[in-house]
Amino acid sequence: MIYGYDPRTGETVGDALPETDRDGVDMIVSAAAAAGEAWRATPAAERAQALEAVADALAAETDELWRLADRETALGEVRLRGEVARTAGQFRLFAQVIRDGGYLEAIVDHADPASAPPRPDVRRMKQPLAGVVAVFAASNFPFAFSVAGGDTASALAAGCPVVVKAHPGHPHTSARVAQIVRRALPYPDLLGLVQGMRAGADLVQHPRVVAAGFTGSVAGGKAIQGLIDEREVPIPFFGELGSVNPVVVLPSAPKAAVASGFATSLTMGVGQFCTNPGLMFVPEDDELRTALVEAVEGTTGGPMLAERIRDGYLGGVGRLGELRLLAEGKPGEGEWAVTPKVFTTDVKTFADKLPGIGEECFGPASIVVTYRELAELRPVLERLDGSLTATVHGTDPGEAAEITEALGARAGRLIWNGWPTGVAVTWAMHHGGPWPAATSTTTSVGATAIDRWLAPRAYQDWPEQLLPDELKDDNPLNVPRRVDGTLTR
Amino acid sequence: MIYGYDPRTGETVGDALPETDRDGVDMIVSAAAAAGEAWRATPAAERAQALEAVADALAAETDELWRLADRETALGEVRLRGEVARTAGQFRLFAQVIRDGGYLEAIVDHADPASAPPRPDVRRMKQPLAGVVAVFAASNFPFAFSVAGGDTASALAAGCPVVVKAHPGHPHTSARVAQIVRRALPYPDLLGLVQGMRAGADLVQHPRVVAAGFTGSVAGGKAIQGLIDEREVPIPFFGELGSVNPVVVLPSAPKAAVASGFATSLTMGVGQFCTNPGLMFVPEDDELRTALVEAVEGTTGGPMLAERIRDGYLGGVGRLGELRLLAEGKPGEGEWAVTPKVFTTDVKTFADKLPGIGEECFGPASIVVTYRELAELRPVLERLDGSLTATVHGTDPGEAAEITEALGARAGRLIWNGWPTGVAVTWAMHHGGPWPAATSTTTSVGATAIDRWLAPRAYQDWPEQLLPDELKDDNPLNVPRRVDGTLTR
Repeated sequence: MIYGYDPRTGETVGDALPETDRDGVDMIVSAAAAAGEAWRATPAAERAQALEAVADALAAETDELWRLADRETALGEVRLRGEVARTAGQFRLFAQVIRDGGYLEAIVDHADPASAPPRPDVRRMKQPLAGVVAVFAASNFPFAFSVAGGDTASALAAGCPVVVKAHPGHPHTSARVAQIVRRALPYPDLLGLVQGMRAGADLVQHPRVVAAGFTGSVAGGKAIQGLIDEREVPIPFFGELGSVNPVVVLPSAPKAAVASGFATSLTMGVGQFCTNPGLMFVPEDDELRTALVEAVEGTTGGPMLAERIRDGYLGGVGRLGELRLLAEGKPGEGEWAVTPKVFTTDVKTFADKLPGIGEECFGPASIVVTYRELAELRPVLERLDGSLTATVHGTDPGEAAEITEALGARAGRLIWNGWPTGVAVTWAMHHGGPWPAATSTTTSVGATAIDRWLAPRAYQDWPEQLLPDELKDDNPLNVPRRVDGTLTR
Repeated sequence: MIYGYDPRTGETVGDALPETDRDGVDMIVSAAAAAGEAWRATPAAERAQALEAVADALAAETDELWRLADRETALGEVRLRGEVARTAGQFRLFAQVIRDGGYLEAIVDHADPASAPPRPDVRRMKQPLAGVVAVFAASNFPFAFSVAGGDTASALAAGCPVVVKAHPGHPHTSARVAQIVRRALPYPDLLGLVQGMRAGADLVQHPRVVAAGFTGSVAGGKAIQGLIDEREVPIPFFGELGSVNPVVVLPSAPKAAVASGFATSLTMGVGQFCTNPGLMFVPEDDELRTALVEAVEGTTGGPMLAERIRDGYLGGVGRLGELRLLAEGKPGEGEWAVTPKVFTTDVKTFADKLPGIGEECFGPASIVVTYRELAELRPVLERLDGSLTATVHGTDPGEAAEITEALGARAGRLIWNGWPTGVAVTWAMHHGGPWPAATSTTTSVGATAIDRWLAPRAYQDWPEQLLPDELKDDNPLNVPRRVDGTLTR
């Protein structure tokens, strides 16, 4: 049985939920596959409406949802209300994406009998993967990266049915969200939910599953990849596994603003963000150092999402203990509460301890590495593991020129004078990066996330009446296309 | 040492070539990586010119190249001259792709301080992977899928340096092509060449290698994937492993044309195409059967590319021997010559023998499966392995409606009244498909093949002076972009 727990008290929440057994997984995946056939045949405009209905249904239950999730995660009302809104917003963005049609990357090359050899008529567009998408929910976003999270929204938008393996950190929230989404969909079985670790393994090894999305730890991601490797037919694995999110403070940066911004970004949500700033390079400077100590000492910890996550944080902080403690916040309240901690060392010592010291410690802990000359940074930055983000603070962009390429090669998003926590859900957002930040070159946030669940297909001299509407001569759906090499609409 | 062999005589061609040892691989990859840094900083217009210089250099040496390749492959003058032209044409297409700039998928979202939470300015485009691309050359296209083949052209176009592991079937052709390409490039080390199986393993496990392309057998592909799995940092593997390319002949199809087209497609180049029609479903029909027997009996075999490939064909034909022989061609001449063979059975027997009977037999062998009713096909088509292509012959598109979706789910390219051999190099071509046809959703032929070697990066509130030109406000390179949700140029 699965129990939800209250991070503030360590006590169980609500009734126990049954684990999904192998037959249950098979039934749920098969039902999703059947619903998927109807879904992929549904016109784009109707799919967009359905996604908006899901958004409305989630938003309408915000009062109930934030309370339920708060009991299981202790993330608080403001954050959780905002997260429900963001989750609904993701479905709305993908409705726009479907209506636009550009994501299909439609291309039409008319026949050219004069070329040598003669060229046939070839038309190509992306199609939903032919099967069920498995999504492994994350612990730290009970809405936006969970049952109705980005992977679910983008896969449904693409035209694929989804079966989610619930995160054990919020089983009741997961079940309730699934219920709301299923009721809002034209074919409820387009979203299935399974509970339990064993069910996750059965899910990712099911023959009708054609791709898997995952947000979690490096160890968790490797375990799922191992299960996939045992499959007869391999499937793509879109994992987001870990990220230390380096920040470089240039000599020109305003010190007080950097110190307070850092402390806020580090401790928001008890530091439980994939984009938490776990590493910051700063010039050796007493004023900045003092400002950082004050800012961090002004923070307060809080309960982490789960006992295991708390234990992981304590272990990570123990590992960082080989460096010097720069400052710590006040201990938070609650059974699984932890204290924000910031360690410090110089560039040379840090470099000597790579790669181990560069691994993510999930939670409100960070390393402040001091440098004397900017030139010291590039060789160290080049040795960092891949991250979702890399941030630069400064007032003189010229100072950053020599590190931009090194940072860009190690991260999927470069940020200027901001903080990596907070990922805007827009057309241009990229939430990915070199391994272990991501296991692929795709994103899990933003409009282009839909690309995970698509594969191109070409039609050669195919009869007009059998072509998808998007590839017909008169382009009845008015999708953007490249025709004989030229972009058109 | 590595020897080239003449498939007509089985004797060695030219001098022995040394295998590249581990230090050699390291030196070549490191030189490629260094050249790659200059290459990725080279403006797109100059990269396009360099690709055209490579095309010109290859085309200028056609007379020498076809003769050299003919000695090592016995593929003949017409085919090999055409293949050099195609190979040069691939470089020219990618020069167009770079100049167009659409492949970067540039997106600009301006800041929206009014939204809740306020949205930063986010800009995104694709960038070349930060490292060296490894390419494993194929046996059956000594130019178009080899040292200067599609993967090399698309990776160079993307901005990545390439190191090719030569195919042992044409080592001298490989060395000469590498020499020509290196001389035509502004940085010769952008293309490295290694010889020998051990060198291939060292290559794909080299820490500076960031992706690998491969065209070959399922066993070969699995071996490379195994080597990648041993890496500390995983890399994407773009493999094209095997394809049976089913053809469905509808009752309305013209029988004589189908029979002769099939025999030609099956035996062209001694059947050594990834897109060879290895399986054809035909209505039970004496006239068609007679036409097929006559057409196949009119064909002649020839020497295969290598002794191992010949042995593989004989083994495959032996496996198909559990079916009835429908017809065979005349044996070809030459040491490694083989005879075209076509086997036959009915749908029910074929279905009973799946999946084994559905595996590719590389060479001029095929299975003709007879059906009584079109309705018998769909359940069998759904059980086929993934293929690069699926073809339908008929005069009534309505007849195909019920099998189109099943075929489309199993193949990357659908062809109407044509034959799968022959892959046009155009914007819309897709040469890929479900596993084992491909290990990813990308293509190895056509303009979109460049996408294999790119990863997106986002820039948040990034200073204009540090942005790539393609993302600057005034779009100085005039690349297609999506700005605030709307496609623009």
